[in-house]
Amino acid sequence: MKESELIKKIIKIFNKTDRNIILGPGDDTAVLEMGDKNNFYLLTVDEMVENTHFILDFLKPEEVASKLVRMNVSDIYSMGKAKPCYCLVSGGLNYEKINDLWVSSFLKSLKKELDRFSIINIGGNLTKSKEIFFSMTLIGKIDKNKIIKRTGAKAGDFLCCIGNCGNSRAAVDIMTSKKRNDLNKIEEKILKSFIKPEIYVSEIRILSDYASAMIDNSDGLFRSAQILAEMNKIKIEMDFNELIKLCDINLVKWAYENKKDPVEYSLFGGEDYNPIFSVPPDKLVILSKKIKNIKVVGKIREGRGLKINGYYGKIKNFEHF
Amino acid sequence: MKESELIKKIIKIFNKTDRNIILGPGDDTAVLEMGDKNNFYLLTVDEMVENTHFILDFLKPEEVASKLVRMNVSDIYSMGKAKPCYCLVSGGLNYEKINDLWVSSFLKSLKKELDRFSIINIGGNLTKSKEIFFSMTLIGKIDKNKIIKRTGAKAGDFLCCIGNCGNSRAAVDIMTSKKRNDLNKIEEKILKSFIKPEIYVSEIRILSDYASAMIDNSDGLFRSAQILAEMNKIKIEMDFNELIKLCDINLVKWAYENKKDPVEYSLFGGEDYNPIFSVPPDKLVILSKKIKNIKVVGKIREGRGLKINGYYGKIKNFEHF
Repeated sequence: MKESELIKKIIKIFNKTDRNIILGPGDDTAVLEMGDKNNFYLLTVDEMVENTHFILDFLKPEEVASKLVRMNVSDIYSMGKAKPCYCLVSGGLNYEKINDLWVSSFLKSLKKELDRFSIINIGGNLTKSKEIFFSMTLIGKIDKNKIIKRTGAKAGDFLCCIGNCGNSRAAVDIMTSKKRNDLNKIEEKILKSFIKPEIYVSEIRILSDYASAMIDNSDGLFRSAQILAEMNKIKIEMDFNELIKLCDINLVKWAYENKKDPVEYSLFGGEDYNPIFSVPPDKLVILSKKIKNIKVVGKIREGRGLKINGYYGKIKNFEHF
Repeated sequence: MKESELIKKIIKIFNKTDRNIILGPGDDTAVLEMGDKNNFYLLTVDEMVENTHFILDFLKPEEVASKLVRMNVSDIYSMGKAKPCYCLVSGGLNYEKINDLWVSSFLKSLKKELDRFSIINIGGNLTKSKEIFFSMTLIGKIDKNKIIKRTGAKAGDFLCCIGNCGNSRAAVDIMTSKKRNDLNKIEEKILKSFIKPEIYVSEIRILSDYASAMIDNSDGLFRSAQILAEMNKIKIEMDFNELIKLCDINLVKWAYENKKDPVEYSLFGGEDYNPIFSVPPDKLVILSKKIKNIKVVGKIREGRGLKINGYYGKIKNFEHF
């Protein structure tokens, strides 16, 4: 079963709800009414798994920690003007592969990253595991009137994005083909986007007042747009050749050196964690004046599905398994 | 670093708190004030990891699911008259080891077990992992006046327990030494305590009005008592020979057949998930009339530490790694 099919199956099985569940399975975070007058609570979970998300010889423990925090923080902010608050962290450790120094460096960096986003650790679990993994459950809150779901996009809206896409997928290629010490400067810069993906907190605070729907880019731009098209029953059109504007200069240099198409990396990426959102045209005019690095990536029309004009290659979706 | 040392280190690093954190790292669950007038929220996380908590050839997918739910539910109930509400479930899957049928059976059983405890799934995450694992974050709630912490035990109290201890550790021995098809009836019964550990919901609802402190028995009776002694700055005394009353008849039979001491299994066990709690003498008199399967396992005195009278063997604590 493909990941997308399995997710559909899971959503179908676990369709039970109650009046306090504002959003259940199928969005970036769950949204709960927990008795607070002004806020909903947001709950999300994400993992870093050895040999899936990181290679032990390649990433430093502090890099594993920073990525773990940011992949979860991104989910919380993808609901809009939110605030991450508390986390639970589980570790599956293997002391034949790592030592006390590794664990200490991981913990120190975890603390530093949590402090950076004002998150307090409230618990977790430790277990033995042949393959090392870390799981973080992050709890955030959001003003009840400020929530932006994956649904809400309408024909006429523009599909937009903040920042660049594709570096993380290039980083995975680099990690699986080279040793850390052999990386050149460009490769190290690309890797940095993977380890410490930027969270566009101030931009999201602004765009929350204008966006009609939002998703975080963890599945790649193509898949994210597909999800938005499906959930909103709309058609999204993009022009492949225009998407070069999503490519960071380092990605472009790396791609040409390695005979790859950088736009394919931007389109199918994965784990980039920047916000992808829809905006009505009149609001886009105002928003463009308030945020500098906003990029229009597509147009939303009546219809169904995702169309990439000018792309004749294969669909290379990012699958988590 | 030993597990207990690492936990101490983690508690020291993540000592930041705020006024809404009623209990942070170091108890069975985190306890949060989230704006609800009458209830605190309880948050806990636990994992089932291949080759640590289960062997794929040995346990059926529905057994992995039931254990995953119950190990978490136990944590929520160990805070007293609580109510589990919502969960997030992450799966690290390997389709080279399992197939769609395995995943479907797991999901069906997960749904059934969640329904049994009135828990609604609100989200989760899927990832690829060489070693299969499942992580569950469980959110429960509890009346603000009904919470029972690990602290609160006083000299003069009795240490008590509901149900039997030791079967889970015996089950681990069975799983690592035999094939599933070769198990005799007694071994299958012992295994059942591991797969579907009983959650003493109705007993806990009653004893919550009498207990001074409580912990769930996931670390074994010895380690649990050690934790209570340390956290409450008290001395706990048990008589080794009296602890035979904690041994299920199947454990006794299995132990003698395999030349093991069943009492050692009860004392050092691990993953039994029954409540261990302290009660003042006058309240114990009343409580004994209300709950049938209550067992006094020790006496709490002035002083420090844990003393097992009549035991001259080695300390065989259950370590999670």
